[in-house]
Amino acid sequence: MTTSSVSAIAVAVLRRCRDTLTPAMQAAVARLDRASYEQASYHLGWTELDGSPGNGGGKAVRPALALLSAEAAGASSATGLPGAVAVELEHNFSLLHDDLMDGDTERRHRRTVWAQWGAPSAILTGDALFALAVEVLLEAESLHAAAAAWLVTDTTRELIRGQAEDIEFERRSDVGVDECLSMAAGKTGALLAASAEIGAVLAGACPALTTALRTFGAELGAAFQLVDDLLGIWGDPAVTGKPVLSDLRSRKKSLPVTYAVHHGGAAGRELASWLAGAGGNEEPDLRRAAALVESGGGRDWAAAEARRRMTLAEKALAGVEIAEVTRTELVALGRYLTDREF
Amino acid sequence: MTTSSVSAIAVAVLRRCRDTLTPAMQAAVARLDRASYEQASYHLGWTELDGSPGNGGGKAVRPALALLSAEAAGASSATGLPGAVAVELEHNFSLLHDDLMDGDTERRHRRTVWAQWGAPSAILTGDALFALAVEVLLEAESLHAAAAAWLVTDTTRELIRGQAEDIEFERRSDVGVDECLSMAAGKTGALLAASAEIGAVLAGACPALTTALRTFGAELGAAFQLVDDLLGIWGDPAVTGKPVLSDLRSRKKSLPVTYAVHHGGAAGRELASWLAGAGGNEEPDLRRAAALVESGGGRDWAAAEARRRMTLAEKALAGVEIAEVTRTELVALGRYLTDREF
Repeated sequence: MTTSSVSAIAVAVLRRCRDTLTPAMQAAVARLDRASYEQASYHLGWTELDGSPGNGGGKAVRPALALLSAEAAGASSATGLPGAVAVELEHNFSLLHDDLMDGDTERRHRRTVWAQWGAPSAILTGDALFALAVEVLLEAESLHAAAAAWLVTDTTRELIRGQAEDIEFERRSDVGVDECLSMAAGKTGALLAASAEIGAVLAGACPALTTALRTFGAELGAAFQLVDDLLGIWGDPAVTGKPVLSDLRSRKKSLPVTYAVHHGGAAGRELASWLAGAGGNEEPDLRRAAALVESGGGRDWAAAEARRRMTLAEKALAGVEIAEVTRTELVALGRYLTDREF
Repeated sequence: MTTSSVSAIAVAVLRRCRDTLTPAMQAAVARLDRASYEQASYHLGWTELDGSPGNGGGKAVRPALALLSAEAAGASSATGLPGAVAVELEHNFSLLHDDLMDGDTERRHRRTVWAQWGAPSAILTGDALFALAVEVLLEAESLHAAAAAWLVTDTTRELIRGQAEDIEFERRSDVGVDECLSMAAGKTGALLAASAEIGAVLAGACPALTTALRTFGAELGAAFQLVDDLLGIWGDPAVTGKPVLSDLRSRKKSLPVTYAVHHGGAAGRELASWLAGAGGNEEPDLRRAAALVESGGGRDWAAAEARRRMTLAEKALAGVEIAEVTRTELVALGRYLTDREF
């Protein structure tokens, strides 16, 4: 596939999946208590603070994976729909709580729920979205609804482990690359893995297929995080929507940074002492830190590791029987998410 | 039953149920990530901050109801055990989040998790306990595990509604008795209702029995809240562990207060203006406020309403077939929880 055809396929898949998802999401969220409903509608981009209609929120990557996952098992996307709703609710539960824990007052240039309504609201509305995610699955007309619901709760505990480690790592100066990868596997990989698996689980697919889809999602998650970390340093602010060198500005121990610290020799040692508080936070300091990550091998390693993980993701799909059109869509979606410029 | 035999039966039931519960709770909590495990063990009273063994936590009323619920359906308490673990985990999830939302730094004379480890820890550990509650149920060897899990998620949304209303009511001066009762039905009643029902659900009991048990729990919850509110004003600090007149000190719009404001004539109007900020917060002011609640009819109404609700609870059990020993234990437990001095 050429880059432009990959992109065209992925954009079409995301649009189709969003059209399927939106009415089901709206029906689910409408069941929330009044306060949770108001805040969730705003958070999801359906309404603005003044009550006017919103711009509709994000790309809904996880629900798209869930719907394709059902199709990969030879079922209709309708079979995967409760799974798509559940992973989208679960994702937004984690965003509401993470924004509060991280003290982020903005998400996509809009005020976060805790910043607008206070911490208790973000806690309660997050809790409600998680409860609703499990509820929607348990009400699904599938013999495998309980297995899918178990997947969501197990995944949530992985998300929690990843977020707890992320918070802990901020206080430590000796975090290794493996620990960092394991943290990302919890924080980013677990929900993408579950999304890629859940439709097939609802369809009652054989373990070989659900495992392959799960591996696809997990490796895609690792590649996605590596690319995200590269963009956090070298991404174009016009594309990422974040300030230039943003992850260095916050001295985030991202994957390329951690690699350079541990394997970058003299550059790594200089980087480590800058991270520990030596040196300033002005743009020349940040540029110097970025150069240290690069000369310490962090940039090349992260880019190569991202490619290796995407190859593993695609290899997982190659080993099982999936309709060609669905395999093409899954691969296109994966590449679209990880072939970003950095 | 005499008061002393009620109390003896209830104490024996609680002890027996705790003995059944504890190993299962420990096995469940051991599955948590390291940070959540450490904080949950402390919160549950299993360990102290210095690592020494704790005093073992609360009475575990909800798990006792869940185990009796299975026995009421003619099943063994083992059948109800995953339900008992789940409601205890769910209860503690809500305590962790509520303590943070309410800014409470102490619970039972021990520092709360958020006060000790920070807000993110309380959020994450709470989330993990809730996820685990659902997981434990979905792994239960029961054909009705999914129905029980659904009950837990639905109940959680009721808890959230109740807590959200409680927070909202603090900012309003026009909250009516019905709104207050509905809030308490969410915050206190929903989980007691689910606890009383969940063992029978796991046992596959008929709807007549699960509904009767649910009603028992819901009415018990209402009675419990009314008594709790009476104790919050007239309780003996030596018994309640709270300062004298504590609910008035915080100007809590509890049920007796709300009743007096709306139905207490001149006393109610004076009470309303004191709640709105007129008058002081010294002990004579609080004693005067307590006298206004009493002369406004709030004390008598709440006591009568608590008795009426306990009668409804017991009546619900009288209408269905339950082994006599189990019915006696349920009734004794209910009376033990609501026959407190005020």
